[in-house]
Amino acid sequence: MKNLEGMLKEDALEGKTILITGGGTGLGRSMGKYFLQLGANLIIASRKKDVLQETAKKLENETGRQVLPLVCDVRDKVQVETMWAKASQEFEEINGVVNCAAGNFICPTERLSANAFDTVVDIVLKGTSNMTLTAGKHWIHNNQEGVFLNIVTTYSWTGSAFVVPSAAAKAGVLAMTRSLAVEWAKYNIRTNAIAPGPFPTEGAFSRLMPGELADEFNPARKIPLKRVGEHQELANLAAYLMSDYSGYINGEVVTIDGGEWLQGAGEFNHLRNIPEELWDSLEEVRNKKK
Amino acid sequence: MKNLEGMLKEDALEGKTILITGGGTGLGRSMGKYFLQLGANLIIASRKKDVLQETAKKLENETGRQVLPLVCDVRDKVQVETMWAKASQEFEEINGVVNCAAGNFICPTERLSANAFDTVVDIVLKGTSNMTLTAGKHWIHNNQEGVFLNIVTTYSWTGSAFVVPSAAAKAGVLAMTRSLAVEWAKYNIRTNAIAPGPFPTEGAFSRLMPGELADEFNPARKIPLKRVGEHQELANLAAYLMSDYSGYINGEVVTIDGGEWLQGAGEFNHLRNIPEELWDSLEEVRNKKK
Amino acid sequence: MKNLEGMLKEDALEGKTILITGGGTGLGRSMGKYFLQLGANLIIASRKKDVLQETAKKLENETGRQVLPLVCDVRDKVQVETMWAKASQEFEEINGVVNCAAGNFICPTERLSANAFDTVVDIVLKGTSNMTLTAGKHWIHNNQEGVFLNIVTTYSWTGSAFVVPSAAAKAGVLAMTRSLAVEWAKYNIRTNAIAPGPFPTEGAFSRLMPGELADEFNPARKIPLKRVGEHQELANLAAYLMSDYSGYINGEVVTIDGGEWLQGAGEFNHLRNIPEELWDSLEEVRNKKK
Amino acid sequence: MKNLEGMLKEDALEGKTILITGGGTGLGRSMGKYFLQLGANLIIASRKKDVLQETAKKLENETGRQVLPLVCDVRDKVQVETMWAKASQEFEEINGVVNCAAGNFICPTERLSANAFDTVVDIVLKGTSNMTLTAGKHWIHNNQEGVFLNIVTTYSWTGSAFVVPSAAAKAGVLAMTRSLAVEWAKYNIRTNAIAPGPFPTEGAFSRLMPGELADEFNPARKIPLKRVGEHQELANLAAYLMSDYSGYINGEVVTIDGGEWLQGAGEFNHLRNIPEELWDSLEEVRNKKK
Repeated sequence: MKNLEGMLKEDALEGKTILITGGGTGLGRSMGKYFLQLGANLIIASRKKDVLQETAKKLENETGRQVLPLVCDVRDKVQVETMWAKASQEFEEINGVVNCAAGNFICPTERLSANAFDTVVDIVLKGTSNMTLTAGKHWIHNNQEGVFLNIVTTYSWTGSAFVVPSAAAKAGVLAMTRSLAVEWAKYNIRTNAIAPGPFPTEGAFSRLMPGELADEFNPARKIPLKRVGEHQELANLAAYLMSDYSGYINGEVVTIDGGEWLQGAGEFNHLRNIPEELWDSLEEVRNKKK
Repeated sequence: MKNLEGMLKEDALEGKTILITGGGTGLGRSMGKYFLQLGANLIIASRKKDVLQETAKKLENETGRQVLPLVCDVRDKVQVETMWAKASQEFEEINGVVNCAAGNFICPTERLSANAFDTVVDIVLKGTSNMTLTAGKHWIHNNQEGVFLNIVTTYSWTGSAFVVPSAAAKAGVLAMTRSLAVEWAKYNIRTNAIAPGPFPTEGAFSRLMPGELADEFNPARKIPLKRVGEHQELANLAAYLMSDYSGYINGEVVTIDGGEWLQGAGEFNHLRNIPEELWDSLEEVRNKKK
Repeated sequence: MKNLEGMLKEDALEGKTILITGGGTGLGRSMGKYFLQLGANLIIASRKKDVLQETAKKLENETGRQVLPLVCDVRDKVQVETMWAKASQEFEEINGVVNCAAGNFICPTERLSANAFDTVVDIVLKGTSNMTLTAGKHWIHNNQEGVFLNIVTTYSWTGSAFVVPSAAAKAGVLAMTRSLAVEWAKYNIRTNAIAPGPFPTEGAFSRLMPGELADEFNPARKIPLKRVGEHQELANLAAYLMSDYSGYINGEVVTIDGGEWLQGAGEFNHLRNIPEELWDSLEEVRNKKK
Repeated sequence: MKNLEGMLKEDALEGKTILITGGGTGLGRSMGKYFLQLGANLIIASRKKDVLQETAKKLENETGRQVLPLVCDVRDKVQVETMWAKASQEFEEINGVVNCAAGNFICPTERLSANAFDTVVDIVLKGTSNMTLTAGKHWIHNNQEGVFLNIVTTYSWTGSAFVVPSAAAKAGVLAMTRSLAVEWAKYNIRTNAIAPGPFPTEGAFSRLMPGELADEFNPARKIPLKRVGEHQELANLAAYLMSDYSGYINGEVVTIDGGEWLQGAGEFNHLRNIPEELWDSLEEVRNKKK
């Protein structure tokens, strides 16, 4: 199936330099790898130096391109500005930023401390605003174009129980996306977002959920297409949104979740459990009434 | 509990005349009754003469006010215009219109004929546009204020499987609501909508669903508040939106569903099935890791 | 016009005690006054002691009911918990909380410091989460019902330039509203929001906008109904949502803005500037083509 | 700029056959051309035989691939079924359908006849349901995969004055998109939509708007990015959504409008008219107050 391959022409990001927060692991890393394959240079930032450096080395080996790992806690404005300054020394221009660093607790809200709430908001919302203000001010000051891509969630607009701090913070990021898409367009800065459904990363799900529940709460069960997403599918979408090809998409959040959120939302969608034979007999009843 | 009582001051709709399509039965009838209790005169329109007349008589007896039943198939422009003309002879002014007439099939879409699809669209969407154009043109021509209230569904914006014609038609009514709220405000015509969750009416649910399924698909199961709605709760909201008290609400759709659509939509809401003890042990695991 | 009067039956909030953050001034104060008139007791919390005490005294004089002013900076968890403890000593039960405390800068985002951004997020989003966690945990622990009402903005979902921190924070509050509506409904806690359009308060607008611009940016200009809102209109809606009468509304944000946000959003709404005569001649052209 | 080039690998649609209603002109034609360049076969359907045949011939000459023009009024179920049958004789499989046929009046709603309203609803909503039911039933019956792409508008969710029938009908199409994405996913049928902003086609704008207004209502004025869209930009997005590369996107509507609808929607976006010097002096005032 083609969905496991890169989709864009091979030089789609040639000459661009892209910075990804949370780029050392998981989806951030998968997006970064594809950006490199499309000709981009890459800066990956996260808190864990060893993970970052290992990822950078592997990605360089796999793609033959330059990857700059920079340790940075996005909650800290000074660290973000320092990181940006270092990256700017290494590369003539940084053309795009992917805000992917995140934190989450799956937990009943009444069991959360106010500190736990704040930690998630600080990483997700303030981390994104720190990164965005730093890059945006630099681009505007230097009269340079730029692209932001923010990774949010489908519960950014519906909310969700058990992940309230993340829901609040990601909703904030989505509002920032739409606000700056309008405000900073005059500086030729585009801002978009992706809302991914379940794209499993090694260990992520089992960290959140113990074994016995992993099956009952298997995300594929809640998805119309009956499967989770492949990282390349997300990378294809992300590369498109970072490239010039999406030059007229601005302020948009693209959902890539197999239809997951809609399946839960629609009032009669649960009738999928009705067997065909029953629909037959219901139809007969209706026809008789006519 | 107060939610079973009328909430507005007793003269909230004094001197107003309100027309309800689909007003002979169900929610239309319940809204109409409360409007009468608040001092309004009432016109109820639907296809079934005997049902209409019986309802009119009962409502007059219960409230001591005037109820005019008018037979009308809202799909037919001429019938709608004729009905409006008759109502206008009886009452000096008609001040508000509730578009409540509806039709629906619960059915897999691939089993639907194109005619079945069209029937629902004709009743719901064209019926509403026929009624709205007739009343709106009259109000604008006579330089008269007016209020529209359209009854839609929560799947107007999310869509829903198994009720596709209704989803499409109600979405159309919602878009019409928002469009005319802007366009006709200059004529002092306000336009709003209500999206009700399950408010059972006698027979409605059993008509749609056979006995054995009625329990499994009991709507209360899908609702955070664990109950269906009471007709007076809807009537309170509807009376508010028809009254001068809501004079600054325009173009809005108010959902009254106990949280039903959100419960399905949020990505982690299904974790409500996790027992408390398991959250305890998950918490222990997390604390140990620290 | 009835929209300047209270709409609910006079005992609608009899026996209830309601806490309003940001209750010393503006919309918070207007809502509080109406709650008192409907039989509620009131706790108002804000940072400014003198303003609070003066408001409390005036409201007591006007309504003859009890008003407890409590100094509290909602950004500080400990202050919030202390405030709640004091209020709980005074009143047997607190039945509802209105999260109304807010902060905002109207400013191009590239001129904002990261600190300015954080200040707004801290007041609006963390302030709301501090208050909500405190009240919610208390209610759940004491097996007590409760109602939350969060005051958000219409740009919570669309975003807006020039108020990005507020857009992000209010979007977070909206997601929290929808999340907890689902999660805490089992504890008989309802959670709703209001998105008000322009409801001028003394000085608020002139603080934000200098004289010469106040006219050009007169909010009434952007509103289909050609006027700003009256405080009593907001108070009517808020009282309804705090009362038992809205017992089946949960997770909902009700917009009360005269249609403002929709007027800007719809692609062809700007054609309102076309004069009638031009529509006439366009119609003629179209008819000739037939 | 790369946004004027095709973005996908050259064989992205190799072996696929795609049917486009409204494919003889405008955006339908532009999408079709790019699909051909990516290796697809094409069926274009519309009411006008001569236009269709000329387009088919030109596209075949330009791309060297097969284009089948079929006359069909999508409002007529029988014509749609006949057209599908003919196409199915020519091609072994039809793999995707783009519902692009549309009609619109720009007109104050009180000047619209009920017939004008119905005409737009019939073309846009019933036309789409006729085409969708025909293709979907065929695919399901033959156990064949398929992809739908529906062209809607940004006012599908916000509504818009002066285009009410189109707003209602397109909203209906959007709800159908989301409904079937969930319902038919089990048959491996994906359903998505695009909401384009202004992508001028020869004559389209001048048809709708007389010369003197064309400038005042120049759509580029309302767009953050200060330009209208290029057809290739839309074609790139459409080809992606029709290809296997978007295999995990389902039930989604992707907006490509340069941020147009958000610019109107955000409450403070109109402050873009404030000159920089005024922001300077506002900042000074604020700093003095500190």
